[in-house]
Amino acid sequence: MSIRRLLAFVILSAASPAALALTPALPAPEVAPSEIVAAAPAEAWTTIAADQLLVMDLAPDAAGHARRVVIQLVPAPWSQGWVGNIRKLAQAHWWDATAITRVQDGYVVQWGDPDAENKARAKALPSGLLTTSQGGYVLTGGAAPPLSGPKLADAPYSAKIRYFAGWPIAMEAGHAPATWPVHCYGTVGVGRDMPPDAGTGAELYAVIGQAPRQLDRNIAVVGRVIDGMEWLSSLPRGHGEIGFYQTPAERTPIRSIRLGSEVPDLGTWQYLSTDSPAFARYVAARANRRDAFYVRSAGGVDVCNAPVPIRRALAKR
Amino acid sequence: MSIRRLLAFVILSAASPAALALTPALPAPEVAPSEIVAAAPAEAWTTIAADQLLVMDLAPDAAGHARRVVIQLVPAPWSQGWVGNIRKLAQAHWWDATAITRVQDGYVVQWGDPDAENKARAKALPSGLLTTSQGGYVLTGGAAPPLSGPKLADAPYSAKIRYFAGWPIAMEAGHAPATWPVHCYGTVGVGRDMPPDAGTGAELYAVIGQAPRQLDRNIAVVGRVIDGMEWLSSLPRGHGEIGFYQTPAERTPIRSIRLGSEVPDLGTWQYLSTDSPAFARYVAARANRRDAFYVRSAGGVDVCNAPVPIRRALAKR
Repeated sequence: MSIRRLLAFVILSAASPAALALTPALPAPEVAPSEIVAAAPAEAWTTIAADQLLVMDLAPDAAGHARRVVIQLVPAPWSQGWVGNIRKLAQAHWWDATAITRVQDGYVVQWGDPDAENKARAKALPSGLLTTSQGGYVLTGGAAPPLSGPKLADAPYSAKIRYFAGWPIAMEAGHAPATWPVHCYGTVGVGRDMPPDAGTGAELYAVIGQAPRQLDRNIAVVGRVIDGMEWLSSLPRGHGEIGFYQTPAERTPIRSIRLGSEVPDLGTWQYLSTDSPAFARYVAARANRRDAFYVRSAGGVDVCNAPVPIRRALAKR
Repeated sequence: MSIRRLLAFVILSAASPAALALTPALPAPEVAPSEIVAAAPAEAWTTIAADQLLVMDLAPDAAGHARRVVIQLVPAPWSQGWVGNIRKLAQAHWWDATAITRVQDGYVVQWGDPDAENKARAKALPSGLLTTSQGGYVLTGGAAPPLSGPKLADAPYSAKIRYFAGWPIAMEAGHAPATWPVHCYGTVGVGRDMPPDAGTGAELYAVIGQAPRQLDRNIAVVGRVIDGMEWLSSLPRGHGEIGFYQTPAERTPIRSIRLGSEVPDLGTWQYLSTDSPAFARYVAARANRRDAFYVRSAGGVDVCNAPVPIRRALAKR
């Protein structure tokens, strides 16, 4: 095997005595997280329903390459006021001919109506959108379903991270604790003005840098990018205030955003069930890398460094 | 003031009674971290010496825009075997006509000699490069200078984060603790093969996603991008194994990499001194956002969500 200059994700089928001799003090290398995921049995994978997906088609890039971004919506009971609005906006084809309006390096990509601030030119929203107050950012009083899965390192605020149906959920201490979905790389949330209830869901953002933990509980988490993240993260950065583009020509046009159930031949995605033994092994291996590249295990892992594995299903639905 | 759709970094010069009336249960908004940094006195800023900078000029982009990336090298006594090699490589102009070879979404951008794996075609390295073993990834036995600055949330492994001369440094518990610089968005490290001493510094990477905490103590941290990060983070992603480009045409050419002391008219950068009262206030404000946008403070902050502020000096040197 020709050794490549790997930083990580090394797959080593068998450690040879010669390789071990280079690092005699180390225990034998163990499997990598990617190997645990690859070996997970079929029953450990859960299919994501098509109506839980949002499909954003950007205009093709300069080389003519199609750019499709697939987003999984956050499951009930979190953020459902906004998620309901997003379904209405997608069903109304409201986002067609809108645009990516802001790319702030290390922070977020944002999209919506470029004229939203201009009352004379702003695109009319569909009727029936709900207004949700800041109380909607968290579920309180035991309103959450039971959380489970492996325990991770606590968030920098005093909350535990557990899982629900493939999603990392933060949970405060207490008998009927408040719970909320957390921001990670690729998380999608609802842009808003100063009043905390100002966000309808028409303006959305995706995280393209370090998890902005300070946004948790201050803004609605509504989804996560599960395919095509690179089409957002590699966009040119904006040079206006907080990364807004300064000219219309800089914006990337959005051709359409649809619910997955409206998109023919979309394919199917699955997540590794967060209750499965394979997921527990994966998180443990992410926290304590002992595959061949590593000389020292971290002994812990942040929720955003152990993303829930998601794959395209092998057969189409 | 026309309210923009801001996600953060909101600058509010004075909270009006009307604005406060919208959120009556909240205390009056306080200053944002960005305002604390803007108000820091001149003596809180420390100039970075030109010979501590590495200046990478990429080929211009498709629109003809110059792409310059400025990297600050990690200070002694950490990683100095590799930093010395990097100085030699820059002084030998070794990186001229090399390339960006790998972009893995949410992880790293990597650069160096595209032919490094091909013995017949690999570019010869300058003589006199040092080989540093994995022991060089940390300083042990009290070899570190005193660390100081505000205390942050612990890393997911059991280490404290403190500061030295503008750099976040992790420190194990104990009397003469091991210390090491940590990975964040924009951190630059030394790519290496499987043997932990294989990295010379000729092949470097920069982090473009969530801080890969698992790499700490497993690879040499040698610097951080302080300007032009967007020219790395927005590059097209590679679609080969672990993000390597599959064809030479996909690679971005590197015109040159020089020590800052060799670059005329470079300008000067300064960091907010990590011992200054302004920095302590900045970290406290990042951990407990109470500026106008926020309805709930996090109560803690990860080291990579409180990046040490860096600015261009107002006057050229």
